[in-house]
Amino acid sequence: MLDIDDSPIVRDGNVLILAMDHGLEHGPVDFADVPEKLDPSTVFETATHDAVTCIAVQKGVAEGYYPSYEDDVNLLVKLNGTSNLWMGEPDSAVNCSVEYAAEIGADAVGFTLYGGSNHEVEMAEEFREVQEAAREHDLPVVMWSYPRGQGLKNDTKPGTISYASRLALELGADVAKVKYPGSREAMAHAVRCAGDMKVVMSGGSKTTDREFVSTVEGVMDAGGHGLAVGRNVWQREDPTRILDALEGVIYRGETTDAALE
Amino acid sequence: MLDIDDSPIVRDGNVLILAMDHGLEHGPVDFADVPEKLDPSTVFETATHDAVTCIAVQKGVAEGYYPSYEDDVNLLVKLNGTSNLWMGEPDSAVNCSVEYAAEIGADAVGFTLYGGSNHEVEMAEEFREVQEAAREHDLPVVMWSYPRGQGLKNDTKPGTISYASRLALELGADVAKVKYPGSREAMAHAVRCAGDMKVVMSGGSKTTDREFVSTVEGVMDAGGHGLAVGRNVWQREDPTRILDALEGVIYRGETTDAALE
Amino acid sequence: MLDIDDSPIVRDGNVLILAMDHGLEHGPVDFADVPEKLDPSTVFETATHDAVTCIAVQKGVAEGYYPSYEDDVNLLVKLNGTSNLWMGEPDSAVNCSVEYAAEIGADAVGFTLYGGSNHEVEMAEEFREVQEAAREHDLPVVMWSYPRGQGLKNDTKPGTISYASRLALELGADVAKVKYPGSREAMAHAVRCAGDMKVVMSGGSKTTDREFVSTVEGVMDAGGHGLAVGRNVWQREDPTRILDALEGVIYRGETTDAALE
Amino acid sequence: MLDIDDSPIVRDGNVLILAMDHGLEHGPVDFADVPEKLDPSTVFETATHDAVTCIAVQKGVAEGYYPSYEDDVNLLVKLNGTSNLWMGEPDSAVNCSVEYAAEIGADAVGFTLYGGSNHEVEMAEEFREVQEAAREHDLPVVMWSYPRGQGLKNDTKPGTISYASRLALELGADVAKVKYPGSREAMAHAVRCAGDMKVVMSGGSKTTDREFVSTVEGVMDAGGHGLAVGRNVWQREDPTRILDALEGVIYRGETTDAALE
Amino acid sequence: MLDIDDSPIVRDGNVLILAMDHGLEHGPVDFADVPEKLDPSTVFETATHDAVTCIAVQKGVAEGYYPSYEDDVNLLVKLNGTSNLWMGEPDSAVNCSVEYAAEIGADAVGFTLYGGSNHEVEMAEEFREVQEAAREHDLPVVMWSYPRGQGLKNDTKPGTISYASRLALELGADVAKVKYPGSREAMAHAVRCAGDMKVVMSGGSKTTDREFVSTVEGVMDAGGHGLAVGRNVWQREDPTRILDALEGVIYRGETTDAALE
Repeated sequence: MLDIDDSPIVRDGNVLILAMDHGLEHGPVDFADVPEKLDPSTVFETATHDAVTCIAVQKGVAEGYYPSYEDDVNLLVKLNGTSNLWMGEPDSAVNCSVEYAAEIGADAVGFTLYGGSNHEVEMAEEFREVQEAAREHDLPVVMWSYPRGQGLKNDTKPGTISYASRLALELGADVAKVKYPGSREAMAHAVRCAGDMKVVMSGGSKTTDREFVSTVEGVMDAGGHGLAVGRNVWQREDPTRILDALEGVIYRGETTDAALE
Repeated sequence: MLDIDDSPIVRDGNVLILAMDHGLEHGPVDFADVPEKLDPSTVFETATHDAVTCIAVQKGVAEGYYPSYEDDVNLLVKLNGTSNLWMGEPDSAVNCSVEYAAEIGADAVGFTLYGGSNHEVEMAEEFREVQEAAREHDLPVVMWSYPRGQGLKNDTKPGTISYASRLALELGADVAKVKYPGSREAMAHAVRCAGDMKVVMSGGSKTTDREFVSTVEGVMDAGGHGLAVGRNVWQREDPTRILDALEGVIYRGETTDAALE
Repeated sequence: MLDIDDSPIVRDGNVLILAMDHGLEHGPVDFADVPEKLDPSTVFETATHDAVTCIAVQKGVAEGYYPSYEDDVNLLVKLNGTSNLWMGEPDSAVNCSVEYAAEIGADAVGFTLYGGSNHEVEMAEEFREVQEAAREHDLPVVMWSYPRGQGLKNDTKPGTISYASRLALELGADVAKVKYPGSREAMAHAVRCAGDMKVVMSGGSKTTDREFVSTVEGVMDAGGHGLAVGRNVWQREDPTRILDALEGVIYRGETTDAALE
Repeated sequence: MLDIDDSPIVRDGNVLILAMDHGLEHGPVDFADVPEKLDPSTVFETATHDAVTCIAVQKGVAEGYYPSYEDDVNLLVKLNGTSNLWMGEPDSAVNCSVEYAAEIGADAVGFTLYGGSNHEVEMAEEFREVQEAAREHDLPVVMWSYPRGQGLKNDTKPGTISYASRLALELGADVAKVKYPGSREAMAHAVRCAGDMKVVMSGGSKTTDREFVSTVEGVMDAGGHGLAVGRNVWQREDPTRILDALEGVIYRGETTDAALE
Repeated sequence: MLDIDDSPIVRDGNVLILAMDHGLEHGPVDFADVPEKLDPSTVFETATHDAVTCIAVQKGVAEGYYPSYEDDVNLLVKLNGTSNLWMGEPDSAVNCSVEYAAEIGADAVGFTLYGGSNHEVEMAEEFREVQEAAREHDLPVVMWSYPRGQGLKNDTKPGTISYASRLALELGADVAKVKYPGSREAMAHAVRCAGDMKVVMSGGSKTTDREFVSTVEGVMDAGGHGLAVGRNVWQREDPTRILDALEGVIYRGETTDAALE
């Protein structure tokens, strides 16, 4: 973990990652209700909102669409990922090298680690290479820290999420993206486990505005440093409204009520 | 995905790949009715037709026959492939490096990815290396995107084909070659999932002229960018006639009826 | 094995490693009673005690916290490790390269080898690379030599611990960190098996002051060269008191009684 | 496939490889009746016969014995092979690099591919590296193309041998060494499947002079380009006589009767 | 196989390797009756006897003890090995690189190959790398050629030992170390299978002076080139006496009776 407060993906110490790698991880089904969002340009447009500190996409989307938005959007290239056609133990193919990510203009890189999977050891070794290459290119590293696989019956219980954020710190990430452990108290523990490293909440599937913003408020109160969000923004009819609210909660310390007004 | 409209394998925005890797993938049985086509020269001759934007062959055929046709044919070297003697989960050996493909004059490279196979992760990582090396050599990358393997009971249903074209976009291909999903509407969705990346239909086994050309017309109407075809051309007695028709449908927007006249 | 007596991690021929990689290996549960120690700074503070010849941490903690302590603490980067979410045969991911450890200021490196595991061969080959790279960077190598896995029913019986220390010698470590084999006599044999290489005892879970210091006294009497300790120091309310006592026993040859006064 | 007619291993368009890797592949049992042939010098002597265009041996025999024969014998280094103590699916260890083969004077290299084995993909990828390195060193590549393994009940049936020769063409070999498919017609088809690439028959176990030469005559009539032979030459009391006959059949187009006189 | 008669590890055409890697391969149990030999210096002292052409040890022992004996002892670094805690199919970790062995002063390198093991292919490929690197460093290569594993019920029967020595020749070793096949005649066949390559007998567990020296006499009569011995030397009270006898038998062609006097 290094101090990344001067990085373009951080604003006033916090982070809001707009993620759109669902076409790979989940497939077209995530776009069933919003088919226009199959065009990545639409999400890049959304990412120009000031609340968003970077967009997280896979290599192919990055090289195809980022050039048109490089002045207005910061780029996080997600380096690994796997389709949900995959039936094996949780694993994630390294789809992009750090070198290529840097070449196409990345401001940061992202990497999924499935702690507890039969592939944990292999993934941790891939992470080593990615992390050290990222250091050479001066790129912050965000770990999608998702314990999952054999032996893990519940991947959002507090102890698991706390372990997830600690793993990210120990292995050298700069930001941990973890699932919400169900309570503000549990989130506070997960944040504490990360020492001085930033912890952001992973957005998850779509909920109501109030419920979502309120959870994020809880994350911030718990000492978290923001959010990585996908469906809860780009599956909405009006992404701007929710981003306005998130901006209030994350950067201005507003309450949910104030932010939603 | 990059803009490849200026590439030799594209004509007026569209692509017609004449594929002849069946000797590896299917074996001599595909030539049972056309034994003269065992001589790769015959298919290179066919590839000189203006409708064909490139021929797709494996390394050995490329190095043996392309030199005699380099002025009249564009070369796509298919970089992986496996015999049908293989009994394991779908997999494909990387038979040629991008460097060697470039050295023998390739204008583009091709790569099969079996999403959903037990080998998906491994193949996606091989694709990463191929794709990034192709970028260095300025060679367009065509992905044979064929979900297949454990857990996939039907590899041509619409959702699978749409996922296939999206995978190609996310992972950094420039063209996705997918199977026909059974309807014009499903094809249109698959095309939409690919964003600005080109999607071409994979030809499949031999049918009648009308049926084949009509399907291609549907692909073009659905927003597709052409065709990769093998048996439906070189297994015919008169490849020129079908190529003439395909030229009309693909590049001049003709109807099947007009094109077949 | 090389002579490392001039290394910063050795004081008067002996070694006291303060280990804090529990956040990775055991998870947050080890901090349940001492939540303030989740902040790595607190353990770095403890490591400034003169008795401590180096702190052993994983890469992420090293790069985040060592810079503030580099004048007062010597750094041992533990190069491999695995979470206890891992359900497979004992294995340990190589989380940090020797090159990167050197770059962030390491004075020594550490590596776990699970002799007898199904992964023994693979781990021994990883150790070869680590050991030879460490030689290039002039960094002493400490092996956490822990026979474990299929076929090993008791990993602390005397013959196993003696084998553990011999493995470290044969494979080229400079210090072996082994579990206490249950008696002074058995420890003396383990030390003898290591030839001129140093053997230190691995601290284990928390016990009383007297019991712990007395065991260490036995290790020194048996010819051992010190201790690697974690929980028995930083899980205590007053780490200084126990370190004062260990200093007496390890470097001044005091008895437990004298040292605890 | 490249044109190798100017290579030292080709005489008037044809090839006769004297193979002696049986000590590795079959073990000493192949020498039970001719123990004097355990001394590789004896087979190198035989290889000085004008009919032989090269000797095929493993690395150790090449480096030990070729230096004494380099003026009179051309050397093909067989790059992979496995003992028959191996009980797993057909596989073949890469025992020699192309670089080392070139260094010790190889005029060509040989490689076994077991199409249809569980190791087909891995072997094909090893072949890629070998073939491309051989191109750099300007060394012709002979593929021992032997479909074998799970799912293949009969490895000499016509369709299998035709597939074998086609695989060699597609993957970039310059010569395919295949088993005799049982009839002249089947051999002719296998030759046709190889396009312009040379196909030679693999000699097999010892038979009578007439039977053996007659089979070779059939191979030549079928369009084949010669023979790779081991036991049928060096297990005989008088290798010269059979080589004289083979010279007639292979290079002068003689009938079996004429050649045996 | 190269001519190594000018190598320091050869004396008058023969070889006597004093092996002491038992601490790794067998563990401390081999030292139960001679605990003073746990100190590698004692065995290095023994290796200064003129009969010994080199000592064979693992990397860690080599780097720790050879510097004090480099004027009086020749060093063979054993490059692979595995503890007997290993429960899998026979395998051997590559514990030292050829480059590092050369750097610490090796005069030769040693490598175990378990022909017939499920790991044969992998080990043979590791041997390729080792052998070719050893050629670059001009270091003779001794193969511990030990067929073992699934399907091998008796690893010392004559046919197996003959195959073992042939494997070493074919794969490029300079000396094969094989088990005694039970009779002088069988040993003679094993020697013959090796062509011009040297074959030495592997000493095995401790026997009487007469029995041991007599077996070695048989090996020499059978055309063998010496011995690799460990326990039969350093487990004795008086290693000098047995080495004096071996010197007579191996280098002066004495009978057992004469040599033991």
